[in-house]
Amino acid sequence: MTVEPRDPVAVAQALIACPSVTPAEGGALALLESLLAPLGFAVERPVFSADGTPDVENLYARRGDGEAFVFAGHTDVVPPGDEARWTSGPFSAAIENGELIGRGAVDMKGAIACMVAAVARAADEGMNRPVAFLITGDEEGPAVNGTKALLEWAHARGEAFSACLLGEPTNPNALGDEIKVGRRGSLSGTVTIPGVQGHVAYPHLADNPVRKLPAAIAGLMSEPLDEGSERFQPSNLEIVGVESGAGAFNVIPGAASLRFNIRYNDRHTAESLTALIAERLDRALGPGAYRLAFEPPTGDAFLAPAGAFVDAIADAVEAETGRRPALTTSGGTSDARFIKAYCPVVEFGLVGRTMHQVDERVSVADLETLTRIYERALRVV
Amino acid sequence: MTVEPRDPVAVAQALIACPSVTPAEGGALALLESLLAPLGFAVERPVFSADGTPDVENLYARRGDGEAFVFAGHTDVVPPGDEARWTSGPFSAAIENGELIGRGAVDMKGAIACMVAAVARAADEGMNRPVAFLITGDEEGPAVNGTKALLEWAHARGEAFSACLLGEPTNPNALGDEIKVGRRGSLSGTVTIPGVQGHVAYPHLADNPVRKLPAAIAGLMSEPLDEGSERFQPSNLEIVGVESGAGAFNVIPGAASLRFNIRYNDRHTAESLTALIAERLDRALGPGAYRLAFEPPTGDAFLAPAGAFVDAIADAVEAETGRRPALTTSGGTSDARFIKAYCPVVEFGLVGRTMHQVDERVSVADLETLTRIYERALRVV
Ligand SMILES: [Zn+2]
Ligand SMILES: [Zn+2]
Repeated sequence: MTVEPRDPVAVAQALIACPSVTPAEGGALALLESLLAPLGFAVERPVFSADGTPDVENLYARRGDGEAFVFAGHTDVVPPGDEARWTSGPFSAAIENGELIGRGAVDMKGAIACMVAAVARAADEGMNRPVAFLITGDEEGPAVNGTKALLEWAHARGEAFSACLLGEPTNPNALGDEIKVGRRGSLSGTVTIPGVQGHVAYPHLADNPVRKLPAAIAGLMSEPLDEGSERFQPSNLEIVGVESGAGAFNVIPGAASLRFNIRYNDRHTAESLTALIAERLDRALGPGAYRLAFEPPTGDAFLAPAGAFVDAIADAVEAETGRRPALTTSGGTSDARFIKAYCPVVEFGLVGRTMHQVDERVSVADLETLTRIYERALRVV
Repeated sequence: MTVEPRDPVAVAQALIACPSVTPAEGGALALLESLLAPLGFAVERPVFSADGTPDVENLYARRGDGEAFVFAGHTDVVPPGDEARWTSGPFSAAIENGELIGRGAVDMKGAIACMVAAVARAADEGMNRPVAFLITGDEEGPAVNGTKALLEWAHARGEAFSACLLGEPTNPNALGDEIKVGRRGSLSGTVTIPGVQGHVAYPHLADNPVRKLPAAIAGLMSEPLDEGSERFQPSNLEIVGVESGAGAFNVIPGAASLRFNIRYNDRHTAESLTALIAERLDRALGPGAYRLAFEPPTGDAFLAPAGAFVDAIADAVEAETGRRPALTTSGGTSDARFIKAYCPVVEFGLVGRTMHQVDERVSVADLETLTRIYERALRVV
């Protein structure tokens, strides 16, 4: 079966049919190569490895010389969950009532299909600007052998980029809602409060660390971290785990721990936050009364430089949807945090409402509209 | 090898050599039968079973008719832990520097040896009061197929008891410190605080239950349950476990839970406490904002009736140690909680300092002294 690259629905269906649950390639990158090579792209599929993570295959495709405009994304998908709960199979790519159903429909095989169709149509019309595809199979997984490694690999080869459009589903409700022009930073850590384990019948010989949890929780959560900034929501800390004690009802625990995550804006850095958290815990528990450990930082908040690039993408969206998209920075992290070191990056994709859910689905009409938006971006940026 | 029943050290060594880690009989009850039968005891070794627990062998021995004075105890022991850390093997029963070393030396094969020796010596001197032994192999385990079942079994056969001396190690530091004349009750429960799970990037769509933990912890722990009573310490609540969240740093937990245990005196019952805990949580969290579940009650606080029996045991201890023992109710629960329904029960045994530890050990001199105390109890009670 040959797939028509100019038809985003056909390409999306073919991609969804590849069971590329992270870290499996599932045929998705091979399919992309078969579509891009005839369009004049030189395609490479480097595999990256790192201790403790699965090997991951990636795809880099380039057409033309010089600084390339980059389409970035991922073909890997999260597991389908209970397949019996899907209206049609998660990999069968059925169309029902104008919607294409399948794992990855919006996150983000659908958007990749639109990128391919946009490039194919632009090529028909004589586009000759340099274009590249930066596609990973490790966005939903550890993200160690994915976009980060692929960028380093491309950079080492001398590849240079003018700007990047990442196809994550940025629209909460309808195509045209939002362009992501930045992302918050994320910092995680663990607080451990030591106590003295003992038998509940002899509490005077023990020191129950649970007594200190209220002060620690209140110290971490009670005061806002900031009031937000021009383009960002207020930074937010959530305690994502609390643990103390084994299973026994007769043992006073020897330690208690709290795990937290902070999503933070451009008023903070990982460095400023590590100091602030220690200061809050010192005040709540006393210096030396706890241990504090942070996970490796995953990148501070960032913002695409305001100006021609962001405006051009917003113009393209408005031209096709009739709505001026909001420029936002909310939501989770994305691979844009790696790309931003190499060139300006913004994100615009499909409607994310059903992503990671059973019956993930995309409007067929949206696939056509997004293809036209991407084609405009190719021409004007 | 025959063991001389009048020698508590020899009997204790023979018992320690039996590897009777709960629920294994390990030869310990067979040994007791071989010692008691020649002393005129009718010995039975009923095995009890219950769903979800191992079958356990027990021993009931009786000499003479009518209401019997009962020696109660257990031959099962807790696991030895790292055997390499023992000075001599946990089951080799070596004597070093006047101390007998081995698992069960004080808890409570040593005390059982003293009971056997006391009975043997009293028999030599013409004692003819009715005496019984109530020995279980399930005190350190689930305690389902042990003393509780054995008492029901004996009661069904028409066995009647005048009083019971339980040989748990009651002395913190030296023989003669304390007689346990009662025990606190124990009640365990779990509080679950529901929230709404979500992604840390979208806290407005979630409801983090950890926010309510400080109020719940403070509500449970801050106020004392009472001021104690004549023979009891103040009741005490300890939070023995806190749990919220899975392993992920990006997920706001959907629920938080607290596990607690209360050791309580005769000012409370399991019933009064369940009401009090619910009242405290209603105040801290609001009615309906939590779920509260209690473990099956294990028995309220109890006290042996003051009077001749308690006085006689205290007199016997004083006569042999030169010290008047304190009458206490502290520490963990014991099988006395089951026996108290059938006859007055007090507890007096060896020095517990090394119980459940590596190199558990007993002074050889203490074994002789405890034998004389038990022999006096047999005569005067
Ligand atoms: Zn995605
Ligand atoms: Zn014991």
